[in-house]
Amino acid sequence: MFKKITIIGVGEIGGSVGLASRRKLAKEVVGVCRRKSSARKALRANTVDRVTLDLKEGARGADFIILATPVNTIVELGKKAAFEAREGALITDVGSTKKYIVESLERALPEKVSFVGSHPMAGSEKGGPESACKALFKNRDCFITRTKNTDRHALKKVKKFWISLGAKPRVVSLAEHDTIVAGISQMVHVVAAALVISNSGALKYAASGFRDATRIAMADPLLWRDICVTNSANITKSLNALIAILKDFRKAISEKDTRVIEAMLGKARDLRRRFRA
Amino acid sequence: MFKKITIIGVGEIGGSVGLASRRKLAKEVVGVCRRKSSARKALRANTVDRVTLDLKEGARGADFIILATPVNTIVELGKKAAFEAREGALITDVGSTKKYIVESLERALPEKVSFVGSHPMAGSEKGGPESACKALFKNRDCFITRTKNTDRHALKKVKKFWISLGAKPRVVSLAEHDTIVAGISQMVHVVAAALVISNSGALKYAASGFRDATRIAMADPLLWRDICVTNSANITKSLNALIAILKDFRKAISEKDTRVIEAMLGKARDLRRRFRA
Repeated sequence: MFKKITIIGVGEIGGSVGLASRRKLAKEVVGVCRRKSSARKALRANTVDRVTLDLKEGARGADFIILATPVNTIVELGKKAAFEAREGALITDVGSTKKYIVESLERALPEKVSFVGSHPMAGSEKGGPESACKALFKNRDCFITRTKNTDRHALKKVKKFWISLGAKPRVVSLAEHDTIVAGISQMVHVVAAALVISNSGALKYAASGFRDATRIAMADPLLWRDICVTNSANITKSLNALIAILKDFRKAISEKDTRVIEAMLGKARDLRRRFRA
Repeated sequence: MFKKITIIGVGEIGGSVGLASRRKLAKEVVGVCRRKSSARKALRANTVDRVTLDLKEGARGADFIILATPVNTIVELGKKAAFEAREGALITDVGSTKKYIVESLERALPEKVSFVGSHPMAGSEKGGPESACKALFKNRDCFITRTKNTDRHALKKVKKFWISLGAKPRVVSLAEHDTIVAGISQMVHVVAAALVISNSGALKYAASGFRDATRIAMADPLLWRDICVTNSANITKSLNALIAILKDFRKAISEKDTRVIEAMLGKARDLRRRFRA
């Protein structure tokens, strides 16, 4: 499918892309790491054929580049990498917010490359190449964004790439993506953190329900800080909607309104039961 | 330890108590069920030595009675059962709210029995005797309530009982219990339900973080409705505190205040990492 794939950022997502595409989708899969320690970990986990700390060298001559660093560095590193890529190269990213990243890169990238944004809905709170896994994307949704500037052939190729990793591609607009993900993922991290903070004095009594509900509060604060900032308006809107529902619950509970409490809990159960992740 | 243990309500908690105490803590463990279908399930899961639909017959001559029905029926069934119990019998319950249950039963029970409230922090969203498991209480906290009316010997015996099931007893006042559990457990159910409702249009895109955070939204709405009503004031207070933190998050995110977002997410991660459930 490709001659040289370069993965910029070999953490859990980048490493899993490497594991799933090595010796299958490209002759060579090169990982670019910022630190020696992560380069060593990435190699130890067999995620790529070789690693380099030199972004330009790593991207040179690549016909497919995957930007898999935290959202606040994707745009800058993407620009640098693109200039080294082969004529006609394809570039994608795996960032959790798309409007900011895709619009910035569409403006900045040279004509010789095609860019299409991606966001696979996979990964854990642990992060790091040690958490990488070949089957990470299997049966997971992967958003792929289409804008008025998106090249049709590039979109098709990115779709094909994610399908070959086992993912289910979902082509959406930037606005659709950022709205959906603000509610279903980004706000949920904020809520988990709020649950932990509001129970800080009683954590030793928490049981499995609390443990599972707040697992994602252990995710990297810097990573999620930047996600919050780059999708600020949508997360704010999602929080507005959630707070309104929590206030409805609070009113019903404080008034001991059994009818409303039961209706709300029942609605939530019915909705949640239909969903199998 | 006992001659006859009677478990009123053989669901996940009652059934697990049965599995863990049969042939070990009593000559006979009798289960009382309301419906034939649950009686059949309770027997099929080997939770008790025998089942009966007749509460009075089941409780007759028991020296230990465990009330393990939903919170809204514990008081009524506890009264009926106590009159059938042996002179000097011990009674406990496993309800998730304690002030309402313990104060009502202390007023209502005959002199010949001793009552001590319990609340083991265990169980899943599934419920039912099919989910019962011998090791359910192993290493789990079990709240045991002490009031000015609590008999010292009865308290000791209830503690010993839960220890023999593998649980870690935590003796607390009614107010302490209801405050702690409102935040760490009951409010978390409400929040999970609110997350599901506020994302009702996008559930098909949810991934593992959302799945785990909202698993408990599948719990029985009637059970949790009654828990909300019987611990209304404390859950309302917990929701107040949580909503205030969510508003702090919303303000910081809408203002793209990286310093505050990072500090809050970082605090939550540090707290959550210290806790192992």
